[in-house]
Amino acid sequence: MKVFLDSAQAAHHPQNFLHQGVIKPSPESPERIELLRKGAEDAGAIFHTPPDAGLAPIAAVHDARYLTFLQTIHERWKVLPGAAPEVIPNVHPRARSDGYPSSAVGQAGYHQADTACPIGPHTYMSAYASAQSAIAATDAVLAGDRHAYALCRPPGHHAYADQAGGFCFLNNSAIAAQRLLDHRMHPAILDVDVHHGNGTQGIFYARGDVLTVSIHADPDGFYPFFWGHAEERGEGQGEGANLNLPLMRGSDDAVFLTALDTALGAISDFGATAIVVALGLDAHEDDPFQGLAVSTQGFTRIASTIAGTGLPLVLVQEGGYVSDALGHNLTAFFEGL
Amino acid sequence: MKVFLDSAQAAHHPQNFLHQGVIKPSPESPERIELLRKGAEDAGAIFHTPPDAGLAPIAAVHDARYLTFLQTIHERWKVLPGAAPEVIPNVHPRARSDGYPSSAVGQAGYHQADTACPIGPHTYMSAYASAQSAIAATDAVLAGDRHAYALCRPPGHHAYADQAGGFCFLNNSAIAAQRLLDHRMHPAILDVDVHHGNGTQGIFYARGDVLTVSIHADPDGFYPFFWGHAEERGEGQGEGANLNLPLMRGSDDAVFLTALDTALGAISDFGATAIVVALGLDAHEDDPFQGLAVSTQGFTRIASTIAGTGLPLVLVQEGGYVSDALGHNLTAFFEGL
Repeated sequence: MKVFLDSAQAAHHPQNFLHQGVIKPSPESPERIELLRKGAEDAGAIFHTPPDAGLAPIAAVHDARYLTFLQTIHERWKVLPGAAPEVIPNVHPRARSDGYPSSAVGQAGYHQADTACPIGPHTYMSAYASAQSAIAATDAVLAGDRHAYALCRPPGHHAYADQAGGFCFLNNSAIAAQRLLDHRMHPAILDVDVHHGNGTQGIFYARGDVLTVSIHADPDGFYPFFWGHAEERGEGQGEGANLNLPLMRGSDDAVFLTALDTALGAISDFGATAIVVALGLDAHEDDPFQGLAVSTQGFTRIASTIAGTGLPLVLVQEGGYVSDALGHNLTAFFEGL
Repeated sequence: MKVFLDSAQAAHHPQNFLHQGVIKPSPESPERIELLRKGAEDAGAIFHTPPDAGLAPIAAVHDARYLTFLQTIHERWKVLPGAAPEVIPNVHPRARSDGYPSSAVGQAGYHQADTACPIGPHTYMSAYASAQSAIAATDAVLAGDRHAYALCRPPGHHAYADQAGGFCFLNNSAIAAQRLLDHRMHPAILDVDVHHGNGTQGIFYARGDVLTVSIHADPDGFYPFFWGHAEERGEGQGEGANLNLPLMRGSDDAVFLTALDTALGAISDFGATAIVVALGLDAHEDDPFQGLAVSTQGFTRIASTIAGTGLPLVLVQEGGYVSDALGHNLTAFFEGL
């Protein structure tokens, strides 16, 4: 199985993470890359640097105004008198249709949903490289590989077409699915991250050409709070093409695997010809976010169950935070394929 | 002229103010009360403590769910492990129709638009007392007084029916206007604060029974960033009943007074029988926010121009931050009446 990673992905080093009113170091650290790389290598993977497929596959999913924001905001922010080293929003619109300001502070509030996606000098470069890894894995599958893996960091599934959030800037899973679609595949996205894939849902919510399915901890008391409920089924052309399977906090392998069967049933009913797996590993029982309690062996069973569909798989890394188990969980997932 | 202030309004003492990514002390300090009180007393005013008119006049403007949030959130927040002393949001919905979470962190993000409205143990008590001052001033005008003043602090005009923001929790000016309306007056709100009265606009945006007019620094590069543009004219039944007069940063008395003529023309055309003046004094040239450059004598002319309408005036204090001029500006305004 081909695996992709670009060294530029490590340059983004977010500092700010506001948790219950207190600023802490961001859990989305570059160290995650080394733990995940080791986990993949322990399963026999050899990493490739993705070629540069350019901005077009990214712009197929993200708004031009948002991309310009990501490309320019740090340069504009750093010259503000007394500004922090990272772009951090402090004021937000109520609706996407509210006025779009020209100022850096106003645009930060418009395009950054929360305080967990600070933008530093290297953020865009790393997010762009992370997206290129997803594109390369997609292209490997399009070229006939059965499975391919992108070590996407920074992750992507909380990013909307026009908004960063929750450590995410460019929605790598959505970019992969759009690329499959643009090459005459009929893709589903299966998000197994402990957090609901709200950005992914948002991007495809009014579209029927990509099925989005997410298994996650109940968002009522867990990030992203405002989305991820079972009643969110899509709208317009996308009515019925979104499936959320929220699980009680602390749910274990058995509960997760039951939900996975439901998810794969929906993917089969949709007639998907490929699956983008939004591969968060933070549903693990030792993950710092403590949302669900999947075991390391659980990830092997999750992988083997997904592989049992026989569909080509583009595996896109999402969350999973620093713990002794992180690398082992990726190894275990690879072993299940 | 009767003037109102409750000592409970000083208990709210916000600490957190995130400005360009850096946490600073909040400019909306209790010290403002003393400066404003002195300014009013220098003009001969004697303060009255407002009677308690209860929650009903507040609930006539604000959503029940939001009021419950304000009343309970600090108690619920302070028991979160490691939580900051103040309720500070870190993640926000994209639309008001997004899911409403039950958790404290999720609700904070839903009901607090920005990081400039932290909620401490006394915030609700002070905001409630501030609203009672506005209600008492309104009742004085309803009883036949020509003018009345409420030293409303915390201020209110950035608060929506369901959301705090920009130092504001309960929209005192909107509460006053609703009370006038409920007593068969036909009120207009004239907001002369340097910041656009976005909460006030939002509360009445789809209604035609209250005219809302705001003169302010151009929001394109100035709080509240997303609202306050000339093209926002109201919607539905409120179409045409909202008027924004954004001014270039640094505009002086002459520019402001020209805009005031336009504002009063609209108020006359509306056939208003009373005006709620959302009396920010932060358009002054020495105000720390440096949005406009009205002089102290300018406030006298603004007041005399408004008084020239002959309409009853409910004066509701909004912004105006600590400077040597703050109290003098209120004295100057009173002298113009």
